[in-house]
Amino acid sequence: MTQFVGVADMVRWVHRHGPEALIVRLTEYVEADFRRWMSFDKTHRIASHTPFGVIELMPISDPDVYAFKYVNGHPFNPARGYQTVTAFGVLADVHNGYPVFLSEMTLLTALRTAATSAMVARRLARADAEVMAMIGAGSQAEFQALAFRGVLGIEQLRVFDVDEAATAKFVRNLAPAGFEIEVCASASEAARGADVITTCTADKTNATVLTDADVVPGTHINTIGGDCPGKTELDPQILRRGPVFVEYAPQTRIEGEIQNVAADFPVTEFWRVLTGAAPGRTDAAQITIYDSVGFAIEDFSALRFLRDSVAGTDLAKEIDLVAAPEDPKDLYGMTTAPVPV
Amino acid sequence: MTQFVGVADMVRWVHRHGPEALIVRLTEYVEADFRRWMSFDKTHRIASHTPFGVIELMPISDPDVYAFKYVNGHPFNPARGYQTVTAFGVLADVHNGYPVFLSEMTLLTALRTAATSAMVARRLARADAEVMAMIGAGSQAEFQALAFRGVLGIEQLRVFDVDEAATAKFVRNLAPAGFEIEVCASASEAARGADVITTCTADKTNATVLTDADVVPGTHINTIGGDCPGKTELDPQILRRGPVFVEYAPQTRIEGEIQNVAADFPVTEFWRVLTGAAPGRTDAAQITIYDSVGFAIEDFSALRFLRDSVAGTDLAKEIDLVAAPEDPKDLYGMTTAPVPV
Repeated sequence: MTQFVGVADMVRWVHRHGPEALIVRLTEYVEADFRRWMSFDKTHRIASHTPFGVIELMPISDPDVYAFKYVNGHPFNPARGYQTVTAFGVLADVHNGYPVFLSEMTLLTALRTAATSAMVARRLARADAEVMAMIGAGSQAEFQALAFRGVLGIEQLRVFDVDEAATAKFVRNLAPAGFEIEVCASASEAARGADVITTCTADKTNATVLTDADVVPGTHINTIGGDCPGKTELDPQILRRGPVFVEYAPQTRIEGEIQNVAADFPVTEFWRVLTGAAPGRTDAAQITIYDSVGFAIEDFSALRFLRDSVAGTDLAKEIDLVAAPEDPKDLYGMTTAPVPV
Repeated sequence: MTQFVGVADMVRWVHRHGPEALIVRLTEYVEADFRRWMSFDKTHRIASHTPFGVIELMPISDPDVYAFKYVNGHPFNPARGYQTVTAFGVLADVHNGYPVFLSEMTLLTALRTAATSAMVARRLARADAEVMAMIGAGSQAEFQALAFRGVLGIEQLRVFDVDEAATAKFVRNLAPAGFEIEVCASASEAARGADVITTCTADKTNATVLTDADVVPGTHINTIGGDCPGKTELDPQILRRGPVFVEYAPQTRIEGEIQNVAADFPVTEFWRVLTGAAPGRTDAAQITIYDSVGFAIEDFSALRFLRDSVAGTDLAKEIDLVAAPEDPKDLYGMTTAPVPV
């Protein structure tokens, strides 16, 4: 039987532990997997683009465990009552190819994206960072805020979204959680005085939600929303003001902010910072840029964390996803054996 | 909610309709989809190879429906009590990216592989074909036999497998179903006098289960088992004795029998026969070769057929694979809302 964590059980899991605590623990799983980067069989994700959006499969494997995530990105969805992103994922045993764990990943992806941002910022943001600007107050926004508080201690937020209802939702969700939140009239205003700038917008255009003039020395930029061809958020000039860190360069060249600069634009894969092979932030005045697109290892880590966490609890159910004939060569026998009513 | 057909419901479905009748109906779905070949967004499958076997993702999409299958191939599995192949698949709506249908596909893949072979043979085998040689009596064998009876009326089988227990299982399963079965001592003996030769073996080597001398004029060869790099079944000389038909040439060049001949070896994509763009069999003495590797459109067709067939019945359950927050931008709100106990 395959273990299954559905949406209701995922919500119960988040309730039981609290989203901030889960994100903090998840940063350790993601960091552990990034540190053993070379032990993964990596590929860029496989995308099916349509005028409505994109559907992607993100496979990844280490010598023991294979994982993949199904995820869509449909920018026009919220206006039609659907979410921009939905996802689910699977873990399988490499030795026999059997899928052993299936989970909803819409919520889990939100947790892992935030955890990865915070894991990166732990090395790249200034240690004295106190204020984060949040440009975009959609589905991912609260998770980013919780991650940066849990990992960096940031409690002051400056938020801007073109959709006032999204901003109101953000304030309604996070003010009770103890954040100091200033609602701003523009992205520029939000960025003013921020130590970290997080952009998480969903327009499927080469938008410029952050201009070069908005960024002052010492800032760490955490750019989340640009994640497919033609979908970016930054004035490309910003990329030239400090080192750019990426997850997996071959994928980010296609999907990230750096699609708007030359193909040989220098970037650092972040795992090299973790292993000491490359420097992170080198001085307090530096502008550091994390060009996030989301990489399969993060989903691998998130599924691994979830599986460890729900093992032996009531949060995972069994589903019969894999046929198990008594004689492995007698699949046909399953169709002729008596069936329980 | 997402519709789910698990193994138990799949078995019930096959019981309810009978595997032969389902395979025959499935040939119509596969043929309809092959005929509209150009309306699919196609790619070769994405494989993760290990010393144990392969895990693959097979995505495909038309303008309305996206499908993918997860499937493994682990040749050493049966000796360890596992099946060589397990699979599951998903249908999603292109317009919003939501997965709407999830099914076990170990059994369904067996049905669709057999249906595709029979659909091809309906055009390529001689109309007076009466005898089929079956080299390999593993998981796929009975389904192939039922498909060729259901579609071509073939009731006489000549079977050979290196594993006597597999042969005995094949006879035990199919003799009660009304087939005339001759157990043979070698592949050459099985091939003797056969109008159709089906090879479905699972060795992960460039094996030669059928030699050039075994094949007489007028034969249709249905070669199933060769389906990944380094895994083939035919003496390559056989490929030069008649036209070779494939599903999707870019994939078959990597995975099929034709990996053992030149990269420009001429082949015909079978959809072109269906649409009249290319000839099929042109005379009774011709040797025709179907170099099957399995292509994503067949899984698309099979999932589409299954979904149509189980709609409104007790064979599909609902599972909560997709989070559905009341406000699509308020995913976080799901984690703070009261949870039913």
